[in-house]
This record gives sequence, C-alpha cells and structure tokens, in this order.
Amino acid sequence: MMPSLSELKKWYKEHSALIEQDYFSFLKIPSVSTDPSYKKHIHEAASWVENYLKNIGMKTEVWKTSFHPVVFASHQAGSSRPTVLIYHHYDVQPVDPIEKWKSPPFEPTLRDGKVYARGASDNKGQCFYTLTALKALFELCKKIDLNIKVFVEGEEECGSRGALEALKTHQKDLKADHILVVDGGIPAAGKPAITLGLRGIVALEVTCRNSSIDLHSGIHGGIVLNPNRALVEMLSKLWDKKGKIAIPGFYKDVAKPTAKELKAIEKLVDEKYLRKQFGVKAFRGEGGYSLWESNTIRPTLEINGISGGYTGTGFKTVIPSMATAKISCRIVPHQDPEKVARSIANYLKKIAPKGLEIEATWDHGGKPVRSSPDTETSHVCSDAYKEVFGKPCGKIFCGASVPLVADLARASKGDAVIIGVSLDSDDFHAPNEHFGLDQLQQGFLTISRILGRLAT
Amino acid sequence: MMPSLSELKKWYKEHSALIEQDYFSFLKIPSVSTDPSYKKHIHEAASWVENYLKNIGMKTEVWKTSFHPVVFASHQAGSSRPTVLIYHHYDVQPVDPIEKWKSPPFEPTLRDGKVYARGASDNKGQCFYTLTALKALFELCKKIDLNIKVFVEGEEECGSRGALEALKTHQKDLKADHILVVDGGIPAAGKPAITLGLRGIVALEVTCRNSSIDLHSGIHGGIVLNPNRALVEMLSKLWDKKGKIAIPGFYKDVAKPTAKELKAIEKLVDEKYLRKQFGVKAFRGEGGYSLWESNTIRPTLEINGISGGYTGTGFKTVIPSMATAKISCRIVPHQDPEKVARSIANYLKKIAPKGLEIEATWDHGGKPVRSSPDTETSHVCSDAYKEVFGKPCGKIFCGASVPLVADLARASKGDAVIIGVSLDSDDFHAPNEHFGLDQLQQGFLTISRILGRLAT
Repeated sequence: MMPSLSELKKWYKEHSALIEQDYFSFLKIPSVSTDPSYKKHIHEAASWVENYLKNIGMKTEVWKTSFHPVVFASHQAGSSRPTVLIYHHYDVQPVDPIEKWKSPPFEPTLRDGKVYARGASDNKGQCFYTLTALKALFELCKKIDLNIKVFVEGEEECGSRGALEALKTHQKDLKADHILVVDGGIPAAGKPAITLGLRGIVALEVTCRNSSIDLHSGIHGGIVLNPNRALVEMLSKLWDKKGKIAIPGFYKDVAKPTAKELKAIEKLVDEKYLRKQFGVKAFRGEGGYSLWESNTIRPTLEINGISGGYTGTGFKTVIPSMATAKISCRIVPHQDPEKVARSIANYLKKIAPKGLEIEATWDHGGKPVRSSPDTETSHVCSDAYKEVFGKPCGKIFCGASVPLVADLARASKGDAVIIGVSLDSDDFHAPNEHFGLDQLQQGFLTISRILGRLAT
Repeated sequence: MMPSLSELKKWYKEHSALIEQDYFSFLKIPSVSTDPSYKKHIHEAASWVENYLKNIGMKTEVWKTSFHPVVFASHQAGSSRPTVLIYHHYDVQPVDPIEKWKSPPFEPTLRDGKVYARGASDNKGQCFYTLTALKALFELCKKIDLNIKVFVEGEEECGSRGALEALKTHQKDLKADHILVVDGGIPAAGKPAITLGLRGIVALEVTCRNSSIDLHSGIHGGIVLNPNRALVEMLSKLWDKKGKIAIPGFYKDVAKPTAKELKAIEKLVDEKYLRKQFGVKAFRGEGGYSLWESNTIRPTLEINGISGGYTGTGFKTVIPSMATAKISCRIVPHQDPEKVARSIANYLKKIAPKGLEIEATWDHGGKPVRSSPDTETSHVCSDAYKEVFGKPCGKIFCGASVPLVADLARASKGDAVIIGVSLDSDDFHAPNEHFGLDQLQQGFLTISRILGRLAT
C-alpha cells in the first residue's frame, strides 16, 4: 500500500527539522552552470544528489559527459510494472546583480516562512521535495510496485549539452512510460495546473568590432563608425514596424496549436499582477497576437544582455573597439534551434555596415515541447494535484523552456508532463529567489501522491 | 635675455635624469576625475602641481571649488608687460579596460623611449613639460619680462565644473592677452601645427526602466517590453537614413566656418593611417559631408557606453529591469551644450514606448572654440613651432573638446590658441597611453620658445 495523504503529512511533520537542514545544505552549493569558474561546485552538487539518493536506498550512478555530469538513480519493481522517469536539474542561474540580494545567494535564509537563496525554487527546491518524497516512500512502504528512474542534470540553465550526450549513451536506461519534468509551476498559490507545452530556446552572442582599441570620440568622432551605434542599428532591425520579428523566414516553421489543445488550455496573462508584483510599466506582445498567444504559442526574440564602451561610474568619451549583445529566442513547434540561430546570424551579418567585423556565436538551444491532455500521465498528475490542493487541476502552456525535455521524451519513449509548485513570484532567475516552506511541503505531497497513484 | 634653443637643449640634457624622475612621480598619482572613489588622488595631484610651481619660484594658490580644486600660479613682470595664461589639467581618464594594459596604468614604464601610463600624454605629459619649461626659464633668466599665469584644473575629463566656478570667483586674476591651451597635438610626428578650433561637448546618461527586478525571458517573454529592446530602438532613431542626426532642430544653430578659416585650415583625415594604427574597418561621417568636415566643423553624436541585462560569462536569459546608455555630442559654433542636451532628452522621451520609465541625466558639457589665425598669439606660437621643428607650422581644427576653453577665453579676454605635441598614436583615453621622451623634450622646447618670444 502506498501512503495516504494524511500518512504523508504526518511523516513530513515528524521529519521537518531534518528536511530543512538537508534543503539548506543543498542550497549552499553554488552550482552556477553557465560560468566555468564554478565547475568544482557543479561536481559537489552532483555528489550531494547522488549521496542523498544512495542513502535512501536507490541504486545510483553518475554519468560522466564532456560537460557536466548527470546523476541517475533507479528502483526496480519488475518489467511487468510501469516505469516513471523523473527529471530535475541541480544547476542554478548566475546571481548577478549580486548587490540586489538582501541575503547572500548561497547562504539560505529563512524569512517569513520563505527560504531565500539562488536555486531555492529553480530547481533545487523542487528537486529536493522529490528526493524527500522518495525518502518517505522508501521509509513508509515495504514494497514499491513501480519502476522509478531519477535523472538529475547539471546544465539546464545553459543548454543541457552533457545531458544530451547522456540521452544517446544511456538511451536504454531511460526507457519509461511516464516522464515527470518537475521544473514547472502553478499559475497562482493554491491554483493547481499541469503544463502541457514549453517553448524551446536558442541563445547566441553577437559581437561588432571596428578597431583594435577604444578610440577618442572627439579626435575620431565623425570618421570612425562606432560599434555601439552599429549594434543598436542592427538590433533595432530585428523587429519590423508591426512588432514582428523581421528575420526572413523566421515564422515559417511555426505551427498553429490544435483546436483540442486550445480548448483544453487556460489562457492566463495577468497584467495587473505583473504591475503590482514587479512594477511592470510597459507591455508588448507580437504584432497581431494577444499577450497570452505571444507568451506561449508564438516565438519571441529578446536581448538578454548588451554591453559596449564605458559603463562604469561617470563618463569616458570613447568610441569603443567593440560592442556585444546576448540574444535569445523562445521558439515553438516546429521551429528548430539550430536553424533559427543560423537565420539570426545570417540576417545580422547581411544588415551589418560594410567593413565592420561581425561574430555570431552559438551558446545553447533546446526544442519546444507539446504534450497531450489525454495521456494516463496527464490524468494521474491532474488527479494527484486535485487531491493535494482540494481543487480541480487546470492545464496550461508555459512560455519558458526546459531545453532537454523534447529530447528526453523522444529517448525514453514515454509521455511527458511538466509539473511543479513554483510560482511566478518566486523570483527565480532574479535576485532574492525564494521558495515557501509551504510550497516545499505541497510539492512533496503532490509528487508522493503521483508516485502512489502510478504504483497502484 | 630669454634662452635660445641651444641653451634650452643644453639645460634639458643636463637635467634629464631629474626630469624623468619628476615626470614619473606625477604619473603615479591616479587622478581619475570622473569616478568619485579617486577623490583623494585628485587632491594629491593638485598638491603635487602646486608644490612644483612653488619650488621653482612662482606664487601659488589652490582655489577650492564645490568640485575639484584649481591650481593657480603667477609671475609678475609689471602692468606694462604682456600677460600669458597657460592652461593644463592634472586629471586623467579612467583606465578601463584595465586588462588591456601591458603595464599597470599608474606604474609608469619606459619601453623603447616611450613612457606608458594613464596621463603620460593627456595631459600630465604636456603639463609636465610646461612645468619643466618654467623651471628652466626661472633658472636661466635673471629677469622674465612677461606676466605668466598658470591655470591647472582637475576636471577636464568630466566637465570642468569646478574650474567654471573658479572663472567666476577669480575672473580678475585670469586677465590675459594670450591664452595657451596646452592640451592639443600635432597631426604627425615632426609636423607642427597650431589648433584654431575645438568642438564643444555635451554628455548625458539615458536609462530605460520597466520593472523592479530582472524578469524571466521565457515566463515573461512576449508580455513584458524588454528595456534593452526599447533602448536600441530609441537609440537607432537618433540618426536618419541619410546618416544625419534625427533630433528635431539639432543642426539649427550650426554655423558655417568662414571662407578665411576654411582657407587657412589643413584638411587632414588619414584613413590609411587609422586602418594601420588602430585596425579601423568601417568609416562613417555625416550624410552629405566629407570625413574631415564630419570630424571638425560638423557636430556628432556617439554612444560612448551601453549596458543592460546580463553581460558576464555565459548566458542569463533575463528581461532586465533596466538598460542604460551614455551618449555624448561633439558640438560646433554656435550650438549650446545645455540646449542640445535638452533636445536629446526631449526627443528620446517623445519616441519612448508608452509607459516605459525614461530618465535622462546631464553629465557634463563645454562650448566649442574658434580662434583667429591672425592674432599675435597665433603668430608667436607658429613661429616657435617653426623654430623648434625646423618646418613651417600648419593650422588645424581638432574634433576633440577642452570644455573650459571658450569660457576661459571669455573670462580672461585674451586670444586663445590650442597647442601641444601629443599625437593621435599616443592612445590617450585608451589602454597603454604613452608619450615619447622625444615628445617631452619637443614640448619643453616649444613652450619655452613661445614664452621667450612673448617676453621679448
């Protein structure tokens, strides 16, 4: 027998001190994946996860890759029983701007029932409640009649290159009926939903260079083309006057969602909430589309970072030698990350001023995801949410990306659903990321009940 | 009798060890004016200059201002004798990008007869040969039949606010017949010229803000306007399709140079040299004007710095809360810095997307300068250059700015000429700024002979 909701609540209460202690020790590891200087901590975080899973009784492996390792754990119930594959990542986003954190990002701090730390929500918080759920199940059940596989990667925030390798080298280990990608959220506290669509991503860096050193904006101003000017002129041409992306053929592969999908999906964009929560003043979707469409079923292009010349205190009147932009697209079915990256690079090179040196470097990419609302996986997840939250569970598309999911689903041949209990207001990817202890327990209960239902 | 060229050369040779030693000690002071964290060193540099002038026998004062102090020194020859006012500045540009310096910017290093340090050329090098010239004259002459005033300010690189105050509070001290602004250069090594025109400057910082924190480019992409995008779109509209500045009325006050000026002035822009020396690949002047015109008699607008979002190693897929640009114009007669700054700020606010928070902050400004080729000051300087260099002296306009000069000329009621021996290849305002020891001696001889000629 798998434990009931009340048995799970009782167990959680009895273990809450140790749960918090372990959660904090995981959060203390600065496993920033995009910056090579954190490499040591990436391995430290992988070991932490492996040890936890080993200690609760699972069979564990660390899969080495050319990039960051993947932690894999399994529980065997026999080939006649269904198999679930649970996806998480142990890496986190960078912490900049560091000066905006109220407490240090790798010193988890509890304030008003919320834990503040980088990764508190995305994805260490969610990963940790899954680990806790597995621990509870192994402690409370004599026998778990479900094959369980846990896949925890270390590059979700920067392109999942290592995990992509692992999908190839370990494809047979990954076979599953159900895939739970526990890196999603719910639309609001107390409002459960499962996510049936994610956008893909493609990220690249563009550099304009015109001289070997910074020049003097008086002496050389009026003669030498300023790379900052060239860059802003080029970037401004990424959109047309109607607010659509101006790269030739950009929308060619974009598929319309099916009528069935559109009917099942809740169409949520809360401008009032965004104004209140984040002080957002100006909104802009794609020309001709609603904000909900622009955020979910339509692709976007964003300048995530731009820099050129003197950006410190005061002024330095230079014509900089170079200027750089980090740009990324969120893509939708059936756009291909590499094809999109190539078209952006080609377009920028084509519109660049004559003579200027342009470099476009691929950073990372991931395919978009769409899941059916009618699979057993979707139904079981919805039912578990309903049981835990006491409310019907909605279905949503999410504008964000988990780069690996499409490939993981293909490799394991299962049905994927994106689940989780993170909230938009958790400030993941931003300073002061946090996760409520109530969310931690909600997540624990939800994942425990999903596994319980799948096992019976 | 004022010393002849050969007497000056002899004196210089005898004192060369001490000259180098003193020059290095001046260069070691990191008197970066734009960054408030260097304030202590600004005062240190002012004291250094004052002590030097006091030790050679001049009467010195340090004029306190609300900003950086001005060092003033004088020698009295009587009211029947002419008065020369010499202008310098003891402040220097910031050192970024620091990683591109081959030796530390404030540890002067001699390589191949050139001294490498921030300020080696602009303006400590030039200031120091004037100080050395004054020292030589006081040592070599029983009597100097010329009223000499030395004015050394500490904010040339960031708007001369303190010096502007001093012009008002000390106007009577500044009365002069001749003004030597020793912050200019010559077109090439061995090719003397005096500078009869400088452009003015106006610098401002523009910030676009749309949220209280950085947002997630997936979760919020397609909903929230990205300030980086808004900024590049706005900045790209600063120029029209013809490459002219698109701000309404921007060119309204631009005066055409007189036929006499145009005839006297050498029209030098050496693209080949810029390609070779600095690797410049793309050139761009104002639409409808030559590069020489665009560089001297026409105004420009440059984006000196731009920054927004994540600009570190790797990637961070944010919609940043804000984006910033530092922009400056070089202006020409009869444009007014404050009027130009207002028109830029108003234009950007007008074209900004609705709702977006726009802030435009004045940083600094200075008026343009034009001097007549026919004044006694111009003739004496030309003759001294010819004597030292053994070649006829040209007349040029310079695209750069010395913000205080127009106001200084008005306050002192004298005729100003911009002189100096700095070279475009000195890399002032850039990493590895340097000044040849041969230039130091050339400057010393030139300024000594100008003073010698003015005194007789």
